[in-house]
Amino acid sequence: MKNLNSHIEDICKKANQASKVLVYASSTSKNKALKLIANNIKKDIGKILIANKKDMKLAEKKNISTAFLDRLFLDEKRIKDMINGINNIVKLDDPIGKIIKNWTPKNGINISQTRVPIGVIGIIYESRPNVTADASALALKSGNSIILRGGSESFFSSKAITNSIRNALKISDLPINCVQMINTTNRNAINKLLKMQNLVNLIIPRGGKSLIKKIQEESKIPVLSHLDGLCHTFIDKAANKQMSINIALNAKMRRTGVCGATETLLCHKDVYNTILPSVIDELIKNGCEIRGEKKIQALNKKVLLAKETDWSTEYLDSIISIKIVNDVNDAIKHIEKYGSNHTDAIVTNNKKTAEKFLTNVNSAIVVHNASTQYADGGEFGMGAEMGIATGKLHARGPVALEELTTYKYQLRGKGETRP
Amino acid sequence: MKNLNSHIEDICKKANQASKVLVYASSTSKNKALKLIANNIKKDIGKILIANKKDMKLAEKKNISTAFLDRLFLDEKRIKDMINGINNIVKLDDPIGKIIKNWTPKNGINISQTRVPIGVIGIIYESRPNVTADASALALKSGNSIILRGGSESFFSSKAITNSIRNALKISDLPINCVQMINTTNRNAINKLLKMQNLVNLIIPRGGKSLIKKIQEESKIPVLSHLDGLCHTFIDKAANKQMSINIALNAKMRRTGVCGATETLLCHKDVYNTILPSVIDELIKNGCEIRGEKKIQALNKKVLLAKETDWSTEYLDSIISIKIVNDVNDAIKHIEKYGSNHTDAIVTNNKKTAEKFLTNVNSAIVVHNASTQYADGGEFGMGAEMGIATGKLHARGPVALEELTTYKYQLRGKGETRP
Repeated sequence: MKNLNSHIEDICKKANQASKVLVYASSTSKNKALKLIANNIKKDIGKILIANKKDMKLAEKKNISTAFLDRLFLDEKRIKDMINGINNIVKLDDPIGKIIKNWTPKNGINISQTRVPIGVIGIIYESRPNVTADASALALKSGNSIILRGGSESFFSSKAITNSIRNALKISDLPINCVQMINTTNRNAINKLLKMQNLVNLIIPRGGKSLIKKIQEESKIPVLSHLDGLCHTFIDKAANKQMSINIALNAKMRRTGVCGATETLLCHKDVYNTILPSVIDELIKNGCEIRGEKKIQALNKKVLLAKETDWSTEYLDSIISIKIVNDVNDAIKHIEKYGSNHTDAIVTNNKKTAEKFLTNVNSAIVVHNASTQYADGGEFGMGAEMGIATGKLHARGPVALEELTTYKYQLRGKGETRP
Repeated sequence: MKNLNSHIEDICKKANQASKVLVYASSTSKNKALKLIANNIKKDIGKILIANKKDMKLAEKKNISTAFLDRLFLDEKRIKDMINGINNIVKLDDPIGKIIKNWTPKNGINISQTRVPIGVIGIIYESRPNVTADASALALKSGNSIILRGGSESFFSSKAITNSIRNALKISDLPINCVQMINTTNRNAINKLLKMQNLVNLIIPRGGKSLIKKIQEESKIPVLSHLDGLCHTFIDKAANKQMSINIALNAKMRRTGVCGATETLLCHKDVYNTILPSVIDELIKNGCEIRGEKKIQALNKKVLLAKETDWSTEYLDSIISIKIVNDVNDAIKHIEKYGSNHTDAIVTNNKKTAEKFLTNVNSAIVVHNASTQYADGGEFGMGAEMGIATGKLHARGPVALEELTTYKYQLRGKGETRP
């Protein structure tokens, strides 16, 4: 392989060139390319499975968790899900070229605020081979070139999928370099990529917290990501008991490893001895460990004593911290102090309290009377997502097709000169 | 004065606290505060003029250009313009709380994508005292706290205006720390501010190119700005001759110091000896220096020979570079290579050529048959602007009220849990 720096520069230049064709690619061309990709991956299932076996074999030699191995593993069904994912993206509306606003100000020049692609997107992701296909399809449909950098453990699987995508692009109307993969597991490749701000327009990191933190700190390119998913559910004094139980259980236990899982339950002091005991019972019955204040320990002897660090811990596991608060204001303050601007929910039948929470909690997603686990592009009806963003600029919440676009102003005049 | 670092940290913390009140401040409260500010500045005209005299006196001792001194100078009329500016912002629609989209996906949970403030905005600007009032008013109306850091030469003027604003806030419903000024001209204050990413959400730099470049490079906080305004006007072969003359003259000479001024004129080879000679005559007649290729020198002996550096120079002066191109594709390529993604225009009566240009030129603002000098929030009907942004993310083109907001998703359910 060539020198690392020149390899990365070369990839970025090619991605940038390809993005200039994508800017004016029609929906028909893009959908045709996506269909060719889906078909080619289907044709290449055998090759992809062989590559994945190689990855699995190498990973098994390392001291790697079962959950990690499960994310890495591919079988025919999982590859078919990947193909269905691409076909679903074909069906989604093309955001490019859409007029967001059109108006004619006093000067008489017509202005269209029009959706355009961002340009070149770099995605740095965990060892989940399916992301290779999902991210490529989302980028293509939104008119962006993509540079893929998957986890080192999934190198051969990602490579096989990328090859399949690129071979399909060869016979499409789009340039093959719309999709490229960084051909090395060398970590320095990421450092170099993060400095290509003149050629790459957006970085989307996924996966481990320490990696995301490092990328957020070091990138010269704007980053869309979430570092933590420290989500809260607040049971207000005006909450329905059964609804509180259902939502708390689902928000924590439906899947504990997702970023939208509730990590801390806040309970209004007026209902801590009426609603909370049943919530705790139900959580424990479902295998959840509870960490709470002394007052909560008094409700159930299985409750462990919470430490200060518990309020800022994203367990991603069958553990929940529980705190009693004085009222909705107190809940908002707790979330402000310990939350991560991801997703926070309130359970209440008092509309005014609910609206206060929905206005004052400054998270990307705020929820009234539903589970925090709805924090998902699919559930929002966006079809598919690259991830969830918790920053303040550009996009917040699910990052799907529209969030992968920007806009330009097109002015159409009749020879106007400015007085 | 306290230690610099703690001064900056203190300001940022207070701004952040104040921003939490602004999140739910009503339009009535915000407009009331703006009116109080306008009135108080009117009352303080005398004080502000005294402070400005102090700044002018100090500046005159330095070797400073007349243009610079003119931007620094205040008289009663200019302060009244500032007051009118604030009163005009009162009249603008409040973007906060607006529902961008509302829908109910399959899961039955209603989703509102709602405009919310960004939080805390830091503005670092040139020695133009009026920006102190304009920026504060725009930030307040869009629900954001603002931290002001004006040029050192305008320190006393900015301070007097800030005091006037803060005294008005004291008797308003909003916290006084919605508007704060960094009380030092020490440049290290900027470095410290750019590292306050946990408390400040957006930096808007204005003014000198070297300062903006430094801020773009060093900021840990997202930056909205433009570094260059290297704007182009392309005269196509299907251009109307008189329209070409009018637009070229206006785009270059209406005001040469603004970022939307055209710096390079591109001319289709088929009309270089029919339309271009009259354009050049008109520009020269109006005092413009022309730098062009040899072929263009042949048209008029006053044309100077252009160097390679001319294509990447933002003159901000009565100078224009002119190049002959083969066709619209060639023009697009030139703009891609030398442009700054600010504003570029085409003059043509061929609609297809115009649309090609409007699609393929990847600038924030693209113009058909009008002057590039329309690149201005006021001309767009946005009322007022903080500046023009040329990046790809969040906002492009004029940064006005709406661009100073972000959104959140508010989910309203009926007890839904995710399957």
